[in-house]
Amino acid sequence: MGPGPSNPYPEVAAAFARPMLGHLDPEFIALLDDTGDRLRQVFRTANPLTFPVSGTGSAGMEAAFVNVVRPGDTVVVGVNGVFGERMCDVAGRCGAEVVRVEAEWGRPLDPQALLDAHPAPALIAVVHAETSTGVRNDVACLGQQLRHQDAEALVLVDCVTSLGGIPVEIDGWAVDLAYSGTQKCLGVPPGLSPFTAGPRVLERLIDKPQSWYLDLNMLAKYVTGEGARAYHHTAPISMIFALHAGLGALLDEGLDASFARHKACGEALQAGLVERGFELFAAEGHRLPELTTAWVPTDRLPAGVDEAGVRRLLLERYGIEIGGGLGAFAGKVWRVGCMGHTARMANVTLLLGALDEVLT
Amino acid sequence: MGPGPSNPYPEVAAAFARPMLGHLDPEFIALLDDTGDRLRQVFRTANPLTFPVSGTGSAGMEAAFVNVVRPGDTVVVGVNGVFGERMCDVAGRCGAEVVRVEAEWGRPLDPQALLDAHPAPALIAVVHAETSTGVRNDVACLGQQLRHQDAEALVLVDCVTSLGGIPVEIDGWAVDLAYSGTQKCLGVPPGLSPFTAGPRVLERLIDKPQSWYLDLNMLAKYVTGEGARAYHHTAPISMIFALHAGLGALLDEGLDASFARHKACGEALQAGLVERGFELFAAEGHRLPELTTAWVPTDRLPAGVDEAGVRRLLLERYGIEIGGGLGAFAGKVWRVGCMGHTARMANVTLLLGALDEVLT
Repeated sequence: MGPGPSNPYPEVAAAFARPMLGHLDPEFIALLDDTGDRLRQVFRTANPLTFPVSGTGSAGMEAAFVNVVRPGDTVVVGVNGVFGERMCDVAGRCGAEVVRVEAEWGRPLDPQALLDAHPAPALIAVVHAETSTGVRNDVACLGQQLRHQDAEALVLVDCVTSLGGIPVEIDGWAVDLAYSGTQKCLGVPPGLSPFTAGPRVLERLIDKPQSWYLDLNMLAKYVTGEGARAYHHTAPISMIFALHAGLGALLDEGLDASFARHKACGEALQAGLVERGFELFAAEGHRLPELTTAWVPTDRLPAGVDEAGVRRLLLERYGIEIGGGLGAFAGKVWRVGCMGHTARMANVTLLLGALDEVLT
Repeated sequence: MGPGPSNPYPEVAAAFARPMLGHLDPEFIALLDDTGDRLRQVFRTANPLTFPVSGTGSAGMEAAFVNVVRPGDTVVVGVNGVFGERMCDVAGRCGAEVVRVEAEWGRPLDPQALLDAHPAPALIAVVHAETSTGVRNDVACLGQQLRHQDAEALVLVDCVTSLGGIPVEIDGWAVDLAYSGTQKCLGVPPGLSPFTAGPRVLERLIDKPQSWYLDLNMLAKYVTGEGARAYHHTAPISMIFALHAGLGALLDEGLDASFARHKACGEALQAGLVERGFELFAAEGHRLPELTTAWVPTDRLPAGVDEAGVRRLLLERYGIEIGGGLGAFAGKVWRVGCMGHTARMANVTLLLGALDEVLT
């Protein structure tokens, strides 16, 4: 129940046992295509270039920036947590002029401020679900408003901790670029970054981006090529088996049912914490159900045990991992995930019971 | 029996079934440290910064270049196959002045030509085992000669298809930087790139390389940090379980025993092919035991079946994958792997028997 990795679906563990296939084996190519179809359903997009990047969510982030950001481009980035900060760092390494639009940690970004930050940015980038704070940023209106204004700017959304847990509508929201991670609400171990790029991105791809490994021109020839696929790098076969199975479990349940399950667990957990006197960290109305943040109850820690010690007790006695705070909130905030297969009411009950036993 | 991925060791399949752990869980950190120790044994190095990069072998290649190559640096690259070409591409994207030292595909590079190519390069890069041609390049003398001359140049060796299959001596050969892939002679699915960087590399690391994901300064704080580890990106937990188990199987057998097994299989396969009238592609004296290349026996293909059709027959009838040629040798050469757990005499016997049945 940390901020990810979550526990994988049982179907995922079974998929790892599949015999190895080569990355050009027709059976594997069919499975990769099917994985793309499943990802399109989960992202709610028709983008042909939808596939798992061969790295964790941060590799997806880097792939999103390096393929479209040219030196000197203005990139507007929303910053209200670690992952917005990371986007600034990554964009800066592409030579971008980064315009930061900030909100306090724990508060959502103002979407209008993102739109107003610069008259003609190349890209507006924002994190949908900030894993460092448990805050949901409003991203639904950005793309539509920009299209309405005939603006050139691309919209990039980090869906690492949102995809599969709360509604994500890539096409409905006119998002041009998005990436996620497997180890959050998709219920698959970490290692891949589901990625999608729309038609406006394909028109603006950099010919030879600074990263060879994440070069979308080359990757597209393997992922979406008709007939024989051009070898780029060896696909991480077993992880793709696992992702394929996890997406299957999610789609069998149904996206809306999964959102409802995440919502029920998050609400029960947040209500249970408030009942116990915890103060929630994320702003009301923008709390993620899949990631709950609360101030550490410093006056209720057992004698001689600090907050890290309590987390260790939870791990050792109950097998429950919860996360500490990041940055300025290290030691001050706890982060509790209810994501993917871990988003079950029994887990909420167990954690609340364990807290009752451990805290004074 | 393609050029990789090979079949994983049984211990590896079992490791995927381990319950998920968080990337900051003390139990996982201990396993990651142990994975580093095992990699040091396999690379034969004492380098503290030895760890699996969270991507496939090509991510390891990119990590090796982006962290030390500054715009305008001269980089000497040996080119006698696809992976030497790839190195030129990656180095070029770092802004390097690339000096190519070429040999015909199928022939080894001349190490002296690499040393003589430029008076003061920043880096000399060479592929140890060219997966596209089955050729072993002589890399053992490069680092030692450079040290003897007090040269500044770093030596970078691609060990993707050599590590675990033929001797690799990072410290003995004074190699500064090396990377591999899990899916060849290590007998683990693709997805990670074992990586090692020596003390001369650490002195010259670029402060803020163009890749955030592969930034060794940041990665080192997670991988080698004393005490609490600084979170960089979420480690690919299950793949690291798998690598840890695969390295365990390899070290239990013993590196020298593994080299002997690969050698026996490769020699039996190559002798069997020659007996059957095949012409081997790689130059004698530089043939890799773990990857055999042979000209397609065009006069012995069954009526109406091309070389790709024969490979399909092998896959469909016998469950054997072999690889086609790359680049100019597509359709002309076959590539047969005997790597990791796949390097078993029974597999050689099966393939030779299958060829006898399929060819005329």
